[in-house]
Amino acid sequence: MLNQQTPLDLMFQALADPSRRFMVERLSRGPASVSELAKPLTMSLPAVVQHLQVLENSGLIRTEKVGRVRTCHIEWAAMQTAEQWMDERRKSWERRLDRLGEFLAEDGNQ
Amino acid sequence: MLNQQTPLDLMFQALADPSRRFMVERLSRGPASVSELAKPLTMSLPAVVQHLQVLENSGLIRTEKVGRVRTCHIEWAAMQTAEQWMDERRKSWERRLDRLGEFLAEDGNQ
Repeated sequence: MLNQQTPLDLMFQALADPSRRFMVERLSRGPASVSELAKPLTMSLPAVVQHLQVLENSGLIRTEKVGRVRTCHIEWAAMQTAEQWMDERRKSWERRLDRLGEFLAEDGNQ
Repeated sequence: MLNQQTPLDLMFQALADPSRRFMVERLSRGPASVSELAKPLTMSLPAVVQHLQVLENSGLIRTEKVGRVRTCHIEWAAMQTAEQWMDERRKSWERRLDRLGEFLAEDGNQ
């Protein structure tokens, strides 16, 4: 398959860590500064920054620096790409169940 | 944060690979044997088996062996756990937009 990582690879990889999901959960309620995000986490600021870089590289968040404060925002369009992939799988699965149900109903009528 | 991997960590980690997503896409259309899953992939059978083990360990699929054939099934309940996490973030984000909209409407009426 592909050797280079696709956007979906990077997004799911970014979400595969509880600290990063915690950050995304916080940012889905509104933008926050790096220090606000770090406050409830029991880790060093450099570790927080590293996690934020993984999230930013995946496209799930963007950050902007005004003066000395870096603010993080969720990128909802990117989150939707990952959600859409899961949604398509669910629809595919539901279609299969529908077909199975129709088959069983027809089979029962014979 | 946590040192041991949670079910969500394992699920998102499992989905962070295009070959494994390809397998999940195939299985969301119905069960398949290991050799059926391997057929369209340009990789060795041991590599396919390794990817399937990652998917099985994450809970996203289960496999059963009857005679010499191992059949893989998607575990939709596990997929829903990951989908639900994304869905909750989206709702949180939508609530924020609603509040922002109400605030701006009130602000405009003053």
